[in-house]
Amino acid sequence: MKISFIGSGNVATHLAHAFYRSGMEIVQVHSRNFENASALATSVKATPIINLKELIWVDVLVLSLSDSAYPEILTQISQKAKVIVHTSGTLSLDILENTSDEVGVFYPLQTFSKSKPVNWSTIPICIEASSPKTQDFLISLANSISDQVVPLDSTKRKALHVAAVFACNFTNHLYHLASKILEENGLSFELMKPLIAETAEKINTLTPDKAQTGPAFRNDEQILATHMQYLENNKALQAIYSVLSNSIKSHKK
Amino acid sequence: MKISFIGSGNVATHLAHAFYRSGMEIVQVHSRNFENASALATSVKATPIINLKELIWVDVLVLSLSDSAYPEILTQISQKAKVIVHTSGTLSLDILENTSDEVGVFYPLQTFSKSKPVNWSTIPICIEASSPKTQDFLISLANSISDQVVPLDSTKRKALHVAAVFACNFTNHLYHLASKILEENGLSFELMKPLIAETAEKINTLTPDKAQTGPAFRNDEQILATHMQYLENNKALQAIYSVLSNSIKSHKK
Repeated sequence: MKISFIGSGNVATHLAHAFYRSGMEIVQVHSRNFENASALATSVKATPIINLKELIWVDVLVLSLSDSAYPEILTQISQKAKVIVHTSGTLSLDILENTSDEVGVFYPLQTFSKSKPVNWSTIPICIEASSPKTQDFLISLANSISDQVVPLDSTKRKALHVAAVFACNFTNHLYHLASKILEENGLSFELMKPLIAETAEKINTLTPDKAQTGPAFRNDEQILATHMQYLENNKALQAIYSVLSNSIKSHKK
Repeated sequence: MKISFIGSGNVATHLAHAFYRSGMEIVQVHSRNFENASALATSVKATPIINLKELIWVDVLVLSLSDSAYPEILTQISQKAKVIVHTSGTLSLDILENTSDEVGVFYPLQTFSKSKPVNWSTIPICIEASSPKTQDFLISLANSISDQVVPLDSTKRKALHVAAVFACNFTNHLYHLASKILEENGLSFELMKPLIAETAEKINTLTPDKAQTGPAFRNDEQILATHMQYLENNKALQAIYSVLSNSIKSHKK
């Protein structure tokens, strides 16, 4: 199986490594930035390219880009692979329709940072394809790196992506805001780690609505007022505290 | 060591169980609601009471209440124990000053739900006391159930509590919001669990600012606009999406 990548970001990097480790041949890696293309290509014994005209025919061409970078790339990759896929949670399958006879979506639902290894076997990979045959092909490709392969249409995948932004990107940002509050008070972020671990662990036992705790959930107006006053000098934090506390109250049954 | 509890909520329940398991005698459990007092008291072989006049002298009287419930209780518990402590993250030590010669704070930094067991040994317990002798006593008491005991004054404890609301209570609510989005689209929350686990796990390897991913962090305005449009019919979710995305952008270095 010959696979090439357009893009060398976090998703492209982890996915190329996963395919490479499972024995596939990574042929070329394209990036606008040659250093980035080189870094990824070197690690999977592929050839880095910066000119899309150099693309050679492969079985699967994976596009893994910022959503806004797609339009420019899409006009230049016509018929460069048997199957062309993108890895976006939000873009529909349709955007690929003029690039190849067979196209698909290969969306791994995970947060990827280059320096942090991940366990691919548990990562849900959402598959969509232009034909049943290509869907079977992509499911089989996904199964070579993960045990959690899910056929999903563009509408449901978009909902999943929005949910993931809430559960992952926003959550991590809350960790960051907590770490800043601790730092300003000379307290170590280490103190918070058992709490963060338990909060994430808890939802394996209780649904999130049953797991909810804290002053907003208890309607403890006195603490809420004290905390809002504590954040008086940081209006941005106050706004977040307020909007999330109100949301917790309004979701309480 | 004889210990009694005023309050029978999540913190009181888990703390009484931890003391009980480590061999201490739980004497009485008070709650305004007799059923609640009974449920906790029965599980730790204590006596449930609803009238504070029935309190008998113990070594440690633990007050574990909603912050707003303290004022009424505080006038009725004068000199009922060698040491009287509260478990609030936000209330200062001073509120206890007329209740006993020796008072303290015993604040376990964790999220507690009655039906979910926790591992006490890793839970930071923040201690404050009216004298060095009582501080040593409370540290030793805390060490009997946890390996993470931290002396902390009221100001720093309040900061820690605010940070905990961001990292735990708000985070769990984001899990809930994500679960609602999935539910509305006929998708299982199970799909999100590897992502939630990895997001929490990641901060053991990377600081939260290095671990940040997602459209707001990448300034992918196209996805942000698509997601805001997706949430068009839920203004509350839109407000949360907007305030947190803007916060991520503004914290980007």
